[in-house]
Amino acid sequence: MPDLYFDRHEYADRLRAVKQRMRDAGIDVLVLSEPQNMYYVTGYDAYSFYVPQAVIVALDSDLPLWVGRFMDSPSARRTTYLPDDHIIPYPDTYVQAADRHPMQFMAEVIQRKGWGSKVVGCEMDTYYYTARMHAELQKALPDARLTDAELLVNWVRIVKSEQELAYMREAGTITDRMIARAVEVAAPGIRQCDLAAAILGAQASGADTFGGLPSSGPTYICCGERAVEPHPAWNDQPLGTNTPINIETSGCRLRYHAPISRTIYLGQPPQSYKDFAARVVEGVDAALACVKPGVTCEDIEATWRKTLARSGIEKEARLGYSIGIGYYPTWGERTASLRRGDRTVLKPRMAFHMMAGIWLQDTGVTITQAFAVTPNGHEPLTRSARQLIVK
Amino acid sequence: MPDLYFDRHEYADRLRAVKQRMRDAGIDVLVLSEPQNMYYVTGYDAYSFYVPQAVIVALDSDLPLWVGRFMDSPSARRTTYLPDDHIIPYPDTYVQAADRHPMQFMAEVIQRKGWGSKVVGCEMDTYYYTARMHAELQKALPDARLTDAELLVNWVRIVKSEQELAYMREAGTITDRMIARAVEVAAPGIRQCDLAAAILGAQASGADTFGGLPSSGPTYICCGERAVEPHPAWNDQPLGTNTPINIETSGCRLRYHAPISRTIYLGQPPQSYKDFAARVVEGVDAALACVKPGVTCEDIEATWRKTLARSGIEKEARLGYSIGIGYYPTWGERTASLRRGDRTVLKPRMAFHMMAGIWLQDTGVTITQAFAVTPNGHEPLTRSARQLIVK
Repeated sequence: MPDLYFDRHEYADRLRAVKQRMRDAGIDVLVLSEPQNMYYVTGYDAYSFYVPQAVIVALDSDLPLWVGRFMDSPSARRTTYLPDDHIIPYPDTYVQAADRHPMQFMAEVIQRKGWGSKVVGCEMDTYYYTARMHAELQKALPDARLTDAELLVNWVRIVKSEQELAYMREAGTITDRMIARAVEVAAPGIRQCDLAAAILGAQASGADTFGGLPSSGPTYICCGERAVEPHPAWNDQPLGTNTPINIETSGCRLRYHAPISRTIYLGQPPQSYKDFAARVVEGVDAALACVKPGVTCEDIEATWRKTLARSGIEKEARLGYSIGIGYYPTWGERTASLRRGDRTVLKPRMAFHMMAGIWLQDTGVTITQAFAVTPNGHEPLTRSARQLIVK
Repeated sequence: MPDLYFDRHEYADRLRAVKQRMRDAGIDVLVLSEPQNMYYVTGYDAYSFYVPQAVIVALDSDLPLWVGRFMDSPSARRTTYLPDDHIIPYPDTYVQAADRHPMQFMAEVIQRKGWGSKVVGCEMDTYYYTARMHAELQKALPDARLTDAELLVNWVRIVKSEQELAYMREAGTITDRMIARAVEVAAPGIRQCDLAAAILGAQASGADTFGGLPSSGPTYICCGERAVEPHPAWNDQPLGTNTPINIETSGCRLRYHAPISRTIYLGQPPQSYKDFAARVVEGVDAALACVKPGVTCEDIEATWRKTLARSGIEKEARLGYSIGIGYYPTWGERTASLRRGDRTVLKPRMAFHMMAGIWLQDTGVTITQAFAVTPNGHEPLTRSARQLIVK
């Protein structure tokens, strides 16, 4: 029996919504290579996306196909609802070989199913769909019309189900524990890598009644002079005094994320830094206060921008992005962003990370909030207090 | 001052070797989007590869260019030897936007440098070079001839320097500590996720004199009935008794890896399982014994295959792969594989993970060895005993 994380009806609903979008876009056959989308549509969950694989959805086929490396087919049987004859493994000779390519196999499957001259949608800009994969598919399917289906499933995923939100709340519980653990451990003289160890331990252990997984993005620990960088690796230097530590991370529950950033200041921050942090919190509070269905992403960002502008602070980067399922290298959904020009209209059960990180010339502060849209406003997905943490 | 992990001379040597290969392949301008290759050539080290970015090497330019998201340019200044005017940030409006694409910016940079009608090499099959990125680059550089430069730098990387091997040995020290910690913690009733927490804590903490980083591939914990799957996620179920736990993971030191797999058997394994494990160890020992410069990858695999065949055991998957620098989602270099048909000739200072994992119908055993090729044989990069661990 497979280990499904969702009801069969929920998978059926998802598939129906995806097929509707395919029809609207004139796509007959959809080749999904984004691990998040493979997981969303079939439940398939394994770290096997370092080799080409796909879930293929066709309008004329009730259920999707899984095509992947032979050794991962037991995971397909375990984690999806697909019957055995919908799980199609390719031999290991295709893996990172100079003389053949897995997409040739994929194309043969498509031909064999009679889809060789159909309109085939490909996720053109997803991480694991390379230029070569596309070229091989095109070459092996000369009569097919390949078209861009980038983000097609992601836009279905943007509105969550109740069960998905329940998992995201559980992820948030893990996130809060990770931050609490970081505050507990951070101290002058503690090595950055040992602080990381404490956070990652909490991430995996999760809660008493459910465990965690590694987040799809890494844990960022940005200290001292590296506090101006948003995405560095930590190192093994001891934490200093009178220095900010910017932490960005996320709890992960069954691939669902609820990210957070907090700044922990060891020592006594100068008044100017405290003021800076207070302005950021003000901006987040103001932006969150205007979250509700019907408002657009750019409305929310505008509120943030105006609030910050009063203190002369500007943030070039977008204020946030849609969240949900994550696999390496990101927990963002790559659809809606909280930024100028994004007219996505909020609906209940969308979820975002309001990534209120600001990096100035010589320092940075990050105090963020993951939230879901409710019928009347928003629900925070983490409960850690929105404030500069001084220790 | 930048934080460089290698001597400036070593970077100069690498660049020289890359340019030589470019000349041999008739490539004027090389667009590197594999994070490992960006790191190798310039030192650039940040988790920013979830947005398009590249290091551009041109034959007519002394130093490479870094092109990436504006907020990551401080990391480029911190981690590379590049002068400021070789670090070219694109504005945040390009990030995951519907109306523009970072590769348009990249193409403008290439045009401006006078390389718009040159032969431009692209890494066609690397994880972070998508079909869309390639299409945008081609469209914006109509006079350039785009050609495949996949693995060009990876084949330079396959032979390590002494300093690289020193980091890989340090990674191996971390790996051994992780396995020791796993053996300490694994016990019936312990949740899989808590075992993972212990392993990941050890991975980050590293050793007393140097810290670790998260490995680029995840830690796999495959237990009980899921021991037949090579790449599953762990869960929060308690470990059972009389059951194997297959662990695959790696210590990571400054992005260098020394992976390992071990099976921990809780309880009393049946004689048949002990025999099975003993045959795998025999196979690894025999294959390692024939490692030396001049031998080919397929020779090594043939020795393994013959040794195992005596007991009627067969492994479909390749026996191993080249290792070194890793970023999500893999620590493999994607060049040479220990398998039939791979005629790569071993040279001193190459390094491999002999991934002797065998999954049968209802169980699996994994006892592997990371090693470097020495002038006369091999040097193990981890020191954990090669044996089934019974606890």
